[in-house]
Amino acid sequence: MDDISDARLEAHLSQCRRRPRVGHIQFLNCLPIYWGLVNSGAILDMELIKQSPDVLSHMLVDGDLDIGPISLVEYLRNAEDLVVLPDVAVGSDGPVTSCNLVSKVPFEDLDGARVALGSTSRTTVQLAQLILREKYGVRPDYFHCAPDLELMLREGDAGVIIGDPALRAWLYDSHRLGTHLLDLGQAWKDWTGLPMVFAVWAVRKEYLERCPDIVHEVHRGFLRSRDISLEHVDKVARQVERWEQFPAAQLEDYFTTLDFSLGERQLEGLREFARQVGDQIGVLDVPEVVLLPRQD
Amino acid sequence: MDDISDARLEAHLSQCRRRPRVGHIQFLNCLPIYWGLVNSGAILDMELIKQSPDVLSHMLVDGDLDIGPISLVEYLRNAEDLVVLPDVAVGSDGPVTSCNLVSKVPFEDLDGARVALGSTSRTTVQLAQLILREKYGVRPDYFHCAPDLELMLREGDAGVIIGDPALRAWLYDSHRLGTHLLDLGQAWKDWTGLPMVFAVWAVRKEYLERCPDIVHEVHRGFLRSRDISLEHVDKVARQVERWEQFPAAQLEDYFTTLDFSLGERQLEGLREFARQVGDQIGVLDVPEVVLLPRQD
Repeated sequence: MDDISDARLEAHLSQCRRRPRVGHIQFLNCLPIYWGLVNSGAILDMELIKQSPDVLSHMLVDGDLDIGPISLVEYLRNAEDLVVLPDVAVGSDGPVTSCNLVSKVPFEDLDGARVALGSTSRTTVQLAQLILREKYGVRPDYFHCAPDLELMLREGDAGVIIGDPALRAWLYDSHRLGTHLLDLGQAWKDWTGLPMVFAVWAVRKEYLERCPDIVHEVHRGFLRSRDISLEHVDKVARQVERWEQFPAAQLEDYFTTLDFSLGERQLEGLREFARQVGDQIGVLDVPEVVLLPRQD
Repeated sequence: MDDISDARLEAHLSQCRRRPRVGHIQFLNCLPIYWGLVNSGAILDMELIKQSPDVLSHMLVDGDLDIGPISLVEYLRNAEDLVVLPDVAVGSDGPVTSCNLVSKVPFEDLDGARVALGSTSRTTVQLAQLILREKYGVRPDYFHCAPDLELMLREGDAGVIIGDPALRAWLYDSHRLGTHLLDLGQAWKDWTGLPMVFAVWAVRKEYLERCPDIVHEVHRGFLRSRDISLEHVDKVARQVERWEQFPAAQLEDYFTTLDFSLGERQLEGLREFARQVGDQIGVLDVPEVVLLPRQD
């Protein structure tokens, strides 16, 4: 620290004196984590920014967040600036329910067809292209679209949709509209035998270097929040039911279907995904995944 | 309800099916209320929007919030659209600590001088003008300015400042800069013998008509939050100290100096203020203050 000027030292100190800017995905999939952050009081020691995953990913990369969830694809593109928080993620080990391809025609008939890619997704849209090419042997004509299923199916033959509208499609719309629905978490598992990781939590390297204790505290806060909410998942579902379009039983199913862990198998899934989509996303070498070391 | 069309009925129902959009002042003065909303879990049943008081006032008036704090002056200007939540407010019954006039010269010498009005304030800037005119007999040349004390005193002879920068001025800057400081809550009390109300919580009439049960629930949530945080005010102060520029003892003093109540005396202070500043703010008749009726 000898070469740090007074001004830089002051900035350094003041950065650890303010609450860490932490991102939160404002989709139902992360609601159990929010519930736990409130119930444990951990939220009082964060400046929590709620947004959709695409916005949060950009904020973290741009330095407008210190710590936050980041879509796997954006993580892979920016891995050199980021350290991943272990044991927590948004993923699935089989069905995910809320990352879906919805199509008016059988998937194998989508060659050359117009397929909408929902604008809030970074990872699922790549996974969908991979699965359609490798499993169904089709190369559609993709276009970007607002995450609105009816609009997607008006403008094209199929759409890739994530989050709450995707959950709605899974539960209601697809059946009502008579469409085919592919759960992309299940499709990945069927194809590779591995879990799929849709988003990881990461910290900017520069912030970790400056404020390691805060990062570890936030990490512990997330793990604890996730654990207490899953322990009380029936209560979470009943409380949320009041405000959402889904019955408590289906919310509880959804929360327990998701895989919020990031262990060896999930990391293997992550690396396999990186290998498979590298060409698509312009990341030719699978980056080394740097994990936050355990604190002694 | 006979004349409500299907579409309007659906909008009506769906409005009470979403979380109420509730404003929260992101100043230390409202931190005890936030602490209580987290600790009671009430925050889970709100979509809480954190902003400065000027932004929240406009959002409530424009219908971008359902319920929220509103600067007294903005409430008086828009009283016909709003119903006030009783028993909760931000005010003072004597010193307030964070609504200050800071001056390089004695206040009686400010006639014709340049005095900055901080842009985040709606009510304190009117109170300052009233007190300077009526108590000190001076009519300065006012100008609007960002809420930055050093900037204000560079551009003018005095400045009116609220919130955290005002608290900092009260505790540190004024002494350091050798300036005169007038606590405007105390000045009002000295002049009228009454408490000062800086902001009330109000609900839009149209929202109250549609979703009365939610309004009562939010109101109870605020009262309970305020009570539990004041009951544990030492704990709140210790937890907050870590992130703020003020020691816990001073934070505790501040939180207990503020008057978070809105009873008969506060309402008398509110009406007296309305009479005194009516000309200044273009509200010639003191509006009837409609309070949320108690729920049976």
